[in-house]
Parts: sequence; structure tokens; C-alpha cells
Amino acid sequence: MIGKNKISSITRLHQKKFRDASGLFLVEGIKSVGDLLRSPMGVVEILATEDWLSKYGNDLSPEISITLVTPSEMERLSAWKNPQPVMAVAQMPSTDAEILDFDQPLLMLDDLRDPGNMGTIIRTADWFGIRQIACSENTVEVFNPKVIQATMGSFTRVVVCYTDLEKLIDRHLQHRRILGTFLSGTPIQQVQFRPSDVIVIGNEANGISENLAAKVTDKILIDSPVKGADKAESLNASIAAAIMMYQLNFSV
Amino acid sequence: MIGKNKISSITRLHQKKFRDASGLFLVEGIKSVGDLLRSPMGVVEILATEDWLSKYGNDLSPEISITLVTPSEMERLSAWKNPQPVMAVAQMPSTDAEILDFDQPLLMLDDLRDPGNMGTIIRTADWFGIRQIACSENTVEVFNPKVIQATMGSFTRVVVCYTDLEKLIDRHLQHRRILGTFLSGTPIQQVQFRPSDVIVIGNEANGISENLAAKVTDKILIDSPVKGADKAESLNASIAAAIMMYQLNFSV
Repeated sequence: MIGKNKISSITRLHQKKFRDASGLFLVEGIKSVGDLLRSPMGVVEILATEDWLSKYGNDLSPEISITLVTPSEMERLSAWKNPQPVMAVAQMPSTDAEILDFDQPLLMLDDLRDPGNMGTIIRTADWFGIRQIACSENTVEVFNPKVIQATMGSFTRVVVCYTDLEKLIDRHLQHRRILGTFLSGTPIQQVQFRPSDVIVIGNEANGISENLAAKVTDKILIDSPVKGADKAESLNASIAAAIMMYQLNFSV
Repeated sequence: MIGKNKISSITRLHQKKFRDASGLFLVEGIKSVGDLLRSPMGVVEILATEDWLSKYGNDLSPEISITLVTPSEMERLSAWKNPQPVMAVAQMPSTDAEILDFDQPLLMLDDLRDPGNMGTIIRTADWFGIRQIACSENTVEVFNPKVIQATMGSFTRVVVCYTDLEKLIDRHLQHRRILGTFLSGTPIQQVQFRPSDVIVIGNEANGISENLAAKVTDKILIDSPVKGADKAESLNASIAAAIMMYQLNFSV
């Protein structure tokens, strides 16, 4: 049985201020914890049921602290409605833009707010081999439990940084085209994507901010076959991101 | 001020059993209610703040009952964390497969479970001009508040039906190709899409069920440029659906 203090030291990591103070975040679920343990990320502690530990406990590095919990204790620890038998406390990797490689594929997120969208975009980027994402300072935090959950383990393979995107472009990306989605852009089928293109995805409600839009070299519209206003006003941000990454992937 | 009974008659529509019993569902938010009022769907009641009613109240049909609510009452009525100033009680349109047109674009959802995915798929389908979706009986209910919210108004333009998909194919779709996404499929860039193709998207965890998979004429892989297992295991269902619809849209 785990004590009250232990439960509170874990559950407070559901909140950003405690994650920031400790440099730690939570990873839940068999798939995500499995990916985490195979990654170079630092793991401080594993909390798991007897069932999970009997299968995987012996493979854990001796530096990882192990805590046995019952399924009902897991319900108290978890941010999920239906908790899985394992949870990890991990060390936040660096989110400093200095670790980016400016000659590799890169996605930018400008003030993206929805954790589900963020997680889905990280998962899709991982699938399409885009292993770096530069986010504006106001973009949702990658260590938010809902983001981590939606990545389905891809947070272990995709570097996510937070920085001033306009300065980043000015200082490091003058040699690359910057593609952004705009309702006033060139229809996507008329655009020849290049592997070196950087993709920018904007905020769910407001799109790409005015200052950043000025840095976009190519404005692109994922166009609809439906003429007139009698259709969806726009695509969801994670959908637009996926279609742009899909096109980039086949640009070779 | 609205009474307790009124509040309970509205909030119970957050639950499927009361929606089914009454044939009514809730629509929240300025954008979605606006789309609803412009659609042929039946609207029984509008609950709105003074602010909203002063702008739009005079345009409402006299058959619609109007209830003035305060912002704090709206918080009690709403399923949202941040309620908007208007909510509507609408009549469920038919979800019977008999209303489908088997010569028009069609998407199929096999046991899709996540409301956010469902809503996003409806929104994307609306954008790409696919105005009919046939769902397996176990697919999440389109009138679920989270689905309605994620459609961003597109539920008013896309017909969603529930039926036995295998029988539907056998009886009505023998003249069309049935495309499904499979990790063992043909890479998507090698597939020539045709405007008449029907797209099937499977369950988030298990993909397309075995019996339905037997009816799929063309198995397609949205392939990754990353070789080996060190990548996302799959794409999110709404992302896979979007990429398939995007390709179909440019198949002409």
C-alpha cells in the first residue's frame, strides 16, 4: 500500500506548476511506458501492478525506483478514466531550441492550444519522419498528460522545443522555404513541395499570427471541392498538419 | 430565471438514453447553432443569453421556443468547460441507411469509438465534399455532445447512418471499390484513387474488423519513410481518414 504523501507527490505532476518545479512528468499506459523505457529519456520511477511487474519488472534498470500499486491505487494516481497497469515518472528532456538541427525536417506550431491536437501532431510527425517540432512560447506544453497520451509513445522520438519562432526563422532558417496554411493561399496541388520545406501550423481559432505570417514564404490552401460557403469553415489543425506532412513526405 | 425542472430536462440530453427516448439532442456554441439554424434540421428550442438574443433573436422562426438564460445558468446547462452564450435543442435527423445515395461519395466507419475522432472526421468529410457516412452499429453516436462539438457545425451538412456495413456492401455497393487502410496494404502512392471509391476507416485500437476486411477490395497503407519499428505504430484514425479523403479528392 502506498501512502498519502506518495499519492500526492505523483498526482501533483498532473499540474504544470509542479512539473516545472520538479523537472518531472508522468507517462501512463503500457505502450507509452514501453516506448519510454526503450528511449534515451531518463526514468526516475515506475509505478505498476503486480501483473505488469511480474512480466517486465526484471528488465528494469536498477537505477529506476519501483513501486508496487494495486489497481485501485492506480485509479487514484491516474489522470485517465480507465487507468492502465503502469505509470512512469520521467525526467523532462530539454525543450531549448538550441538542440534543433536546422538542416533536418522541421515542423512549427504557432500558439497551438488543444492538447489532443498537439499529441496527434507529434504522433503524425513521428510517422512521417519529422523528428523536430519548434513551438511558439504559448503553445500547449508537451508534458501535459493529455498531450503525452495522444502521442501514443511518439513523445519519446520527437524533439519538441519552445521559442520565439520569428527570431528562429530570421537566425537559422533563411536557407529554407517556410510553408504555412492560409485560406487565401495557393491550392496545394499547384505547389511543388521540397524535402527541405519547413511547415508552420497556426492556432486552432486564429491561424498563424500576423507577425509570423510575414515570415511565411509560401502560403498554401488545402482546398475543398465544394464551392461557396456551405461547407466546413476550415480543417482541424491536426488534420491540416497531417496533410501538409503527407505531401512533404512524397515531395522527393 | 429558469427552474430546476427545466435545467434537468436540458442536462439529461447529455446522456444517450434520454436523447434516444426523446429524439432530441443538444447543440452548443455560436458557430454550431448558427449552422444549425441555417440547415433544414428541426430546432425545438433556443436557450441563450440576453446578449445573443438581442443580436439574433428576431431572426428566429416563430416555431422555435426561446428561453432567456443568464451566463451562470448556461454554465449549469452546458457540457462544456467554457460555455458559449447559446445552446439549441434539435430534433435528431434520421440515421437509417435507407436515406443514403449509393452513387454519391461515401465514407464508412467501422466501430470508431472516440467522439473527438468522430467529430473531426465529420468535419473533414464536409470539407472534402463527402456528405454521407455509414457507421457500424457500435460506432460512437453522432449526437454525443463531444462529437457535435468537434464537428464545428459540419453535423448539419453530413448525413450519418448506422447499419450493418457488411450487408450494406453486399446489397448496395457491389459496383464500387471499397478501400481500407491496413498496415499490410499497398503503399498509397501506388494506388490510383477513383472518385467512386468508398473509404473504410476502422476502430482506433483494432482497425477494420475481420468480417468487414473481407469485403475491402483494395487494402492501402499510408506508408512511413522511416524504416523499421522505431516510429509511431500507426496513425490516428481521424488522420488516416483525412489523408484518404484528401487523396480521393484529387483522384479526378
